[in-house]
Amino acid sequence: MSEKNSYIPPKIWQWNTDNEGNWANINRPTSGATHNKVLEKGKHPFQLYSLATPNGVKVTIMFEELLSLGIKEAEYDAFLIDISQGEQFGSGFVDINPNSKIPALLDQTHEDAIRLFESGSILFYLAEKFNAFMPSQEKRAECMSWLFWQMGSAPYLGGGFGHFYAYAPVKIEYCIDRFSMEVKRQLDVLDKHLDKNHYLCGEEYTIADIAIWPWYGALVLNRLYNAAEFLDVESYKNVMRWAKEIDQRPAVKRGVMVNKTWGDLATQLHERHDANDFLERTQDKLTRD
Amino acid sequence: MSEKNSYIPPKIWQWNTDNEGNWANINRPTSGATHNKVLEKGKHPFQLYSLATPNGVKVTIMFEELLSLGIKEAEYDAFLIDISQGEQFGSGFVDINPNSKIPALLDQTHEDAIRLFESGSILFYLAEKFNAFMPSQEKRAECMSWLFWQMGSAPYLGGGFGHFYAYAPVKIEYCIDRFSMEVKRQLDVLDKHLDKNHYLCGEEYTIADIAIWPWYGALVLNRLYNAAEFLDVESYKNVMRWAKEIDQRPAVKRGVMVNKTWGDLATQLHERHDANDFLERTQDKLTRD
Repeated sequence: MSEKNSYIPPKIWQWNTDNEGNWANINRPTSGATHNKVLEKGKHPFQLYSLATPNGVKVTIMFEELLSLGIKEAEYDAFLIDISQGEQFGSGFVDINPNSKIPALLDQTHEDAIRLFESGSILFYLAEKFNAFMPSQEKRAECMSWLFWQMGSAPYLGGGFGHFYAYAPVKIEYCIDRFSMEVKRQLDVLDKHLDKNHYLCGEEYTIADIAIWPWYGALVLNRLYNAAEFLDVESYKNVMRWAKEIDQRPAVKRGVMVNKTWGDLATQLHERHDANDFLERTQDKLTRD
Repeated sequence: MSEKNSYIPPKIWQWNTDNEGNWANINRPTSGATHNKVLEKGKHPFQLYSLATPNGVKVTIMFEELLSLGIKEAEYDAFLIDISQGEQFGSGFVDINPNSKIPALLDQTHEDAIRLFESGSILFYLAEKFNAFMPSQEKRAECMSWLFWQMGSAPYLGGGFGHFYAYAPVKIEYCIDRFSMEVKRQLDVLDKHLDKNHYLCGEEYTIADIAIWPWYGALVLNRLYNAAEFLDVESYKNVMRWAKEIDQRPAVKRGVMVNKTWGDLATQLHERHDANDFLERTQDKLTRD
């Protein structure tokens, strides 16, 4: 669309279900549970309800990184929440995350289980609990600034660029331009910073990397929106170097498979309850029920 | 615009400066400094470089709340960054925030001053440093989840709804619908939660409230985008109750004035260096230079 303005908004917005695009079935102007659904629970300290979107894999990478350090207290059960089927609107899920977005987490090690939502909040909670992937002292503030940077920036990549470039039912030039410019600016912010820093916070791999890689790393590795050529991601050489290095971490290779329901079957692990699940995957186990 | 698709994106995105709308002068696809500019510094522990947008006032409210508790170590100098003039691209500012967004903060109490960017990171840093406005133990996780919720949600309110409803050079029905629906969903999330909780984390006023009020509180109080009728904000009765209560806090009344350069002159305090600045404002002092 490149035509001039011809739309005048009404005085009061009304929900028009004809105009919602591919995600119409999960977008609503109201919140809360649509149906009763008790969540399954496993035996581990942490119960994760998620899907292998960028926000989901932040958390599964974090758990796999913690386990790779030998921290057994970070064992987790990962259950699948199929957002295309509206499972994020089940009552049990909404009790953990009233915002109905994956990932959502329960820490069962407390007498009253602690609920956590928002991937950034979960990363911070786990980093603090296990004193891992968070730098100490003067770099702590830097790590938190980059963690929050990711949370405030990625909506322009996902809900902005990704939506209008890949998912919206019409291609709107103004929107694609607006969000492409912002995503390229964000990539350039990272690229300049990673020119002088091996990881986001210097020499140490932290939750800032774990938060940013699933979005901006995946983007330059052409795993998001098939937009690598369009955004000329090869020009962000430092982001590319950083993305490729993190991609080789064993914990990252495991983390991106958890709760994944698309792509090559060999990359999917619908649920995760044990470290051996990665080894013992068979087509049978891939089937959810 | 409600016409059918007629736009085919190019293979590689190109910057077209004709198509950027009202904020064209500050939107670029690259990052970094555009000019050399040493930042002014005052004598207080904290040096804030900001503007009274919702993200800016989060931090000035926090400082005023800390000072209202008698915490003298939270004294701050607030300098104005006029984003309409590109001051966020000055070299001194970029050194603090490579992302060129307000607010940015220096903590001068360390031998090497600590830089902070992202309003959520700043709120967390101050809450932790002064052990204030952050609940302890089991509610800490809840507070952080809502803080991160704000960071991930408000881009749909500001960069999404606000842009397309109030600022974009053309009114695009699809975009206004998309972001209106999401903002109403977010308001409903808050409304249901505040039906059972006095503040975001229960009985205690925390940085979650301080982060969320400048966006969603301002929205229902009709101080953002003149969208109160369009979004039927009166229907979110619990958000309204919470917004009005917080609006009456003396620290909030002061915080919203700092670095404000628009509206009634009586509401503007361009720079803040001392508690008396709020009392001694004159038209002379309002003028920046």
